[in-house]
Amino acid sequence: MYMFKIKAISKKSKARIGQLKTSHGIVESPFFLPIATQAAVRNLTPEELKIMRAQIILSNTYHLFLRPGIKVIEKSGDLHKFMNWTGPILTDSGGYQVFSLAKARKIKPGGVKFKSEIDGKEFFLTPQKAIKIQQALGSDIMMALDVLVGYPYTYKEAEGATRLTLRWAKKCKEEQLKSKRVKQLLFGIVQGGVYKDLRHWCAEELTRMDFDGYAIGGLTVGEPVQKAFAIIRFLTNYLPINKPRYLMGAGKPEQIVRAVKYGIDMFDCVLPTRHGRHGDLFIWKTRPADFFKKRKFYEILHITNAKFKDDVRPLDSRCSCYACQNFSRSYLHHLFRTHEPLALRLATIHNLSFYLDLMKEIKKAIKNGYL
Amino acid sequence: MYMFKIKAISKKSKARIGQLKTSHGIVESPFFLPIATQAAVRNLTPEELKIMRAQIILSNTYHLFLRPGIKVIEKSGDLHKFMNWTGPILTDSGGYQVFSLAKARKIKPGGVKFKSEIDGKEFFLTPQKAIKIQQALGSDIMMALDVLVGYPYTYKEAEGATRLTLRWAKKCKEEQLKSKRVKQLLFGIVQGGVYKDLRHWCAEELTRMDFDGYAIGGLTVGEPVQKAFAIIRFLTNYLPINKPRYLMGAGKPEQIVRAVKYGIDMFDCVLPTRHGRHGDLFIWKTRPADFFKKRKFYEILHITNAKFKDDVRPLDSRCSCYACQNFSRSYLHHLFRTHEPLALRLATIHNLSFYLDLMKEIKKAIKNGYL
Repeated sequence: MYMFKIKAISKKSKARIGQLKTSHGIVESPFFLPIATQAAVRNLTPEELKIMRAQIILSNTYHLFLRPGIKVIEKSGDLHKFMNWTGPILTDSGGYQVFSLAKARKIKPGGVKFKSEIDGKEFFLTPQKAIKIQQALGSDIMMALDVLVGYPYTYKEAEGATRLTLRWAKKCKEEQLKSKRVKQLLFGIVQGGVYKDLRHWCAEELTRMDFDGYAIGGLTVGEPVQKAFAIIRFLTNYLPINKPRYLMGAGKPEQIVRAVKYGIDMFDCVLPTRHGRHGDLFIWKTRPADFFKKRKFYEILHITNAKFKDDVRPLDSRCSCYACQNFSRSYLHHLFRTHEPLALRLATIHNLSFYLDLMKEIKKAIKNGYL
Repeated sequence: MYMFKIKAISKKSKARIGQLKTSHGIVESPFFLPIATQAAVRNLTPEELKIMRAQIILSNTYHLFLRPGIKVIEKSGDLHKFMNWTGPILTDSGGYQVFSLAKARKIKPGGVKFKSEIDGKEFFLTPQKAIKIQQALGSDIMMALDVLVGYPYTYKEAEGATRLTLRWAKKCKEEQLKSKRVKQLLFGIVQGGVYKDLRHWCAEELTRMDFDGYAIGGLTVGEPVQKAFAIIRFLTNYLPINKPRYLMGAGKPEQIVRAVKYGIDMFDCVLPTRHGRHGDLFIWKTRPADFFKKRKFYEILHITNAKFKDDVRPLDSRCSCYACQNFSRSYLHHLFRTHEPLALRLATIHNLSFYLDLMKEIKKAIKNGYL
């Protein structure tokens, strides 16, 4: 039985089309993961995600661990049942959130000590615990606990974080192998900052541990974009060809296209939902099948701009999402101006649909030899 | 062709079942109007309103007149097209909002002068203008512009307001008759405070003007509930039996039941949506068909209460709304605690469904001779 199957490889680039088998169904790659931080994609129901053909979502272990707590979720069965999402779920390990949100964070060789930003309660998160929590959540893809360094960082700091990331990755793998539960995939995370030798080292060591997939972490945290893409391009040479590759937390539509060309299969990003909440809408500038020809295949429409007050056209005439099929720019402008919560919802539906459509068009372009 | 047809009258009370014909379809009475103040029922799409079988909605002339303005709505066609709601719409005249929201409000014999609470711009709203605005909105039911007095009020104040309400009602009726547009119904509003003689006088004068329906305004503004219901009970004796009767801005479920018994056909209230936003859910305590036997046929469940943290039961096992069919109390509790906007949406869906179901059960009870 395959876990990840490559269905097509581009003739023009390292882009590939694949199928990732999970306990809750097959996901066609390259794919985008809408973010459901608190066990809900902000403003949306699971039903709406299905209508826009979201295949898989990402949820945040750190947030759910603190609130409502794993015991509450287990009372419902698992995270799928708790939030009533029947498709696959990827959970991060909590490492990134401990790094960016928690108070009094202190990294020790065995794990990370931190205080909850909600109530100040103290926790010690170990690699083993990160796996146990994700097992309790019942996600389809678990992430190993990694160590991040804040940008800017020295080589020495990046090296230390990479070394600890590798040590913890091994512990996570061992913990996964102990379980007799339904098969949950486990991905290792490549760290190493902007240093190619550290990235190379990390990739090779993780590959040796034989994870189900490999993520690239610690990028788009402040370093120049060109440096990030140099790392991605370099790194995909050292990640197993027959395993899925996940670029964490990125990015803009043109960056996703670029990373796909470098051989990345999985993406998540707050951009579509966050932009939506601010009234910034992704609009196709060209029929998406042509986007490989133009760098600027989309534009961002600021719907709160006065010029849209009586613009009765749909948000995007090329988009078939619920918002575009039912409402005008004029109406959405009005909803934003009057702070009606429906505004956020329609904008989120549209922007996520844009990202999911983008992935469909990317697949089409790979198949047709355009990308 | 009938405009309002009585289909059944209770043997036990003055409750009746009717059909109200509007330009956008027939509405079965007694009915409840969800409130779409800014051309949107807060948090919900028109599609969701249809799923929960909302027959007709109420929108607020005052708000839409100020923002986005009538010209913007006319650019889309009318209010139906602007907000993409294909069912009937009732619009209020703006009188109540001028009274409660506008700044520097001054009532003159010809109309009311006020400043917009948004930008301080000055307006003079006349009865004629109130009709013209509602004609431009294209609502199915227009309301005459009335004059309100704040509670507590003296007899003299109530009398003055009633006199002006009658004068303005006449102007509204004349303005309506001038129009060659698609038939829009026009309702007169009975004022008179808690004084039976004023109410009686107002009802008889309005009846003489032959409106398409009659509303009871100026109640539940602070006066004792018993006084309000004494007025309602008294007043329905003096309103034409063959025209719909609308109790504006009320009320609690048991109050709706009571008013139906007194012969009221139409209701609107912020309670289900506002309670929903605060996490207060209407829960059936008894199979609704039995509610006529018990005064307390429902309870209010405060979902943010800690005891619901791991309560995996549906919000209300007797309810078939989208929220109850798909999510647990535990999940909704979590959404409220983490301030996820989906919480407000699910609670609004549930509470509005409760109110709409209540109206269905009321009709059933009238038909079966229980109410």
